[in-house]
Amino acid sequence: MTIKLGLVGTGTVGGGCIDILQKHKEDFKRHYGIDVELARVCSRDPKQAEAHGVSDLFTLDYHDIVNDPDIDIVIELIGGTTVARDVVVSALEAGKNVVTANKALMATHGEEVMHLAEKMNREIAFEASVGGGIPIIDPLKHSLISNEITSVMGIVNGTTNYMLTRMVDDNLSYDEALKEAQERGFAEADPTADVDGFDAAAKIAILASIAFNSRVTLDDVHTEGIRNITTLDLDTADDMGYVIKLLAIAHRTPDGIDVRVHPTMLPKAHQLATVNGVFNAIYVTGDAVGETMFFGEGAGAGPAASAVMGDVLEVARHLTLGVSPIVGCTCTDNLPILPVEDLQTKYYIRFAVADRSGVLAAMAGVFAKHGVSVRSVVQRGNSEHETVNLSYVTHTAKEASVRAVLAEIAGLEDVLRAEPSVIRVEG
Amino acid sequence: MTIKLGLVGTGTVGGGCIDILQKHKEDFKRHYGIDVELARVCSRDPKQAEAHGVSDLFTLDYHDIVNDPDIDIVIELIGGTTVARDVVVSALEAGKNVVTANKALMATHGEEVMHLAEKMNREIAFEASVGGGIPIIDPLKHSLISNEITSVMGIVNGTTNYMLTRMVDDNLSYDEALKEAQERGFAEADPTADVDGFDAAAKIAILASIAFNSRVTLDDVHTEGIRNITTLDLDTADDMGYVIKLLAIAHRTPDGIDVRVHPTMLPKAHQLATVNGVFNAIYVTGDAVGETMFFGEGAGAGPAASAVMGDVLEVARHLTLGVSPIVGCTCTDNLPILPVEDLQTKYYIRFAVADRSGVLAAMAGVFAKHGVSVRSVVQRGNSEHETVNLSYVTHTAKEASVRAVLAEIAGLEDVLRAEPSVIRVEG
Repeated sequence: MTIKLGLVGTGTVGGGCIDILQKHKEDFKRHYGIDVELARVCSRDPKQAEAHGVSDLFTLDYHDIVNDPDIDIVIELIGGTTVARDVVVSALEAGKNVVTANKALMATHGEEVMHLAEKMNREIAFEASVGGGIPIIDPLKHSLISNEITSVMGIVNGTTNYMLTRMVDDNLSYDEALKEAQERGFAEADPTADVDGFDAAAKIAILASIAFNSRVTLDDVHTEGIRNITTLDLDTADDMGYVIKLLAIAHRTPDGIDVRVHPTMLPKAHQLATVNGVFNAIYVTGDAVGETMFFGEGAGAGPAASAVMGDVLEVARHLTLGVSPIVGCTCTDNLPILPVEDLQTKYYIRFAVADRSGVLAAMAGVFAKHGVSVRSVVQRGNSEHETVNLSYVTHTAKEASVRAVLAEIAGLEDVLRAEPSVIRVEG
Repeated sequence: MTIKLGLVGTGTVGGGCIDILQKHKEDFKRHYGIDVELARVCSRDPKQAEAHGVSDLFTLDYHDIVNDPDIDIVIELIGGTTVARDVVVSALEAGKNVVTANKALMATHGEEVMHLAEKMNREIAFEASVGGGIPIIDPLKHSLISNEITSVMGIVNGTTNYMLTRMVDDNLSYDEALKEAQERGFAEADPTADVDGFDAAAKIAILASIAFNSRVTLDDVHTEGIRNITTLDLDTADDMGYVIKLLAIAHRTPDGIDVRVHPTMLPKAHQLATVNGVFNAIYVTGDAVGETMFFGEGAGAGPAASAVMGDVLEVARHLTLGVSPIVGCTCTDNLPILPVEDLQTKYYIRFAVADRSGVLAAMAGVFAKHGVSVRSVVQRGNSEHETVNLSYVTHTAKEASVRAVLAEIAGLEDVLRAEPSVIRVEG
């Protein structure tokens, strides 16, 4: 039995999938009895199909794939939530199984497409939507299900992790690190989705939904990016025995789900602290398994295609054996999302302020007024602009109080010289 | 549909499984539609059943479980290859599915029991046999199958990793570290299986079989333990920028499979180098996915039970849905096992030798005679016994030549004062 594949999107990841098929098609037959064949390829650019030697399968119109009765599995790799949603929905409606790498789609319309798949008795698989090649969705949906998962924390955006690593290793500024990441193809011309944390937010929404058996969408995730991080923050963290990572965090608490993305100080001894460059890692804590971590390359043709083709082969295996979908939507619980204002943690906050008398006292007054207890404050000069950097580390404080501090300090006349850098301290 | 479980073995891991069932039985129904029920419990010690409140299910005779027509899944947790083999074989022959944590059984009789399961159209699952709670067998059998796996390297024995960590952190001797591990319950009274590497060898045999789609058994694994490692070796490694770990290694080469367990020097920057204490990690390299690592607790009631119950729930899910076994034996290829004598790598070798003139020259002659090129040699005195330690680091050399060097030096009259410490250098 030959399982026929229709590929929509022939960019980096799609090209990687074609490569894997061309290299290992015979291995899949011999090892697993899975016979897959690329039947049709769609993209906006015929040259990409040509470059991979599949011009004969090419179409510009994805309807040629979703309407082809011979095609068993549609692979959606165009990304976004408009055309991609149409492709996925119409493929499922036409009775196809779907494999996608689309984190934005799954983090916003996940419930819709999973229920549609269930209704049609078809599979939708999306391992590649989080962590590139790292197996994480499959372990959460299978190996770890005897656990109550209490926490998922991940470095799930390779672009920002690369930038932070370069800022530490070679003392690059944020702008220099971003430029280098763009030149090396790790960041887009418009880096917003990465540096402002939205890419990571989509991924933690997906992971939290699976881990906690409760729907978490992109809108539920409190999201902050790395734009305000400077080398001074990284140096200070280093002095304190910490590293700074853009962490995607989801905790299960007795009151509900705490889910957020923001720059975070992690102790150097934490297993996530040594995950550098474009590598990703997801740290999962369960009530039986204890602490586990899944590490690997978070992006790139090979890793992402490994995950996509792993899903394709699994679905093809089920089709070959005549097995109906095994795992559908598992969001059976309806846990509340905790307001970020209720968060209680430690904070590192750096203010670039005017270098004049009275500022430090005024700021101390604001912290005291809102009941935010300061553990340490370090002042460092910045000769260029008559500005000094004041780096505060607080005791455990309530997010709402810290926000009140930030708002009131922002309103002080002629004090702030730049946006403060706010970094929560984990562990 | 209620899936009935028969548990054979109520020690640490068996107790952990009972705990999980008691805690999460209702969650499994609600989240996954899986209804499992512990129907019978067998062990040599009724008190263990009593301690977990399951005396009413207790039997001393495992035949009461394998012959019970109501039982769907037999969980074998007694270990070893004699009675455990009988339990597994007779359970499969009676048409039961089997979940086991038994590495020795799978590394020696794996082929037999997997073929028997296939013949009976039943499942045998053994995630807990490697790496405690870490999902590794399942990812290798599912998520990563679009790859040609080229290498699997693991810290898969928590006892020795704990000992080596304690020797580094607190400068404990081998004997002190072993004593402490025994006192804390991390090492058996007879520590042979751990410290001589056999436990790790069974695990890498299982991993290599799956990763390379080719049968590798315990006997195929060249195995050396950590008995000859001293704090001097660990300090020297540290000076060189390395850590010493007991690594289980399997490489796919164009000529066949290179599989072995031995103390290994790893660069400090390697992701495995920071895996300390009783933690385990498995580092997998594939042609598409690149480098990935799976980290977690390698032993203990919770982690091992997490893996066992993950398998149980997966099999139960299949039974509930009426799904036949999905993945059977995948050892379709028949790759040769490379003789360890053909290995080419760098070596660290420490000799404790008599403190007298002529020894260094005699040893240099032996290295030269067998064509083993020495990169550095460091001499350190040991005032106690008129002994000095000579620590050699070689350039890349052939294992057979290094063995010839070791044999010839062992034969030199009145030179060696102790067994040499031989550590291969990776990366």
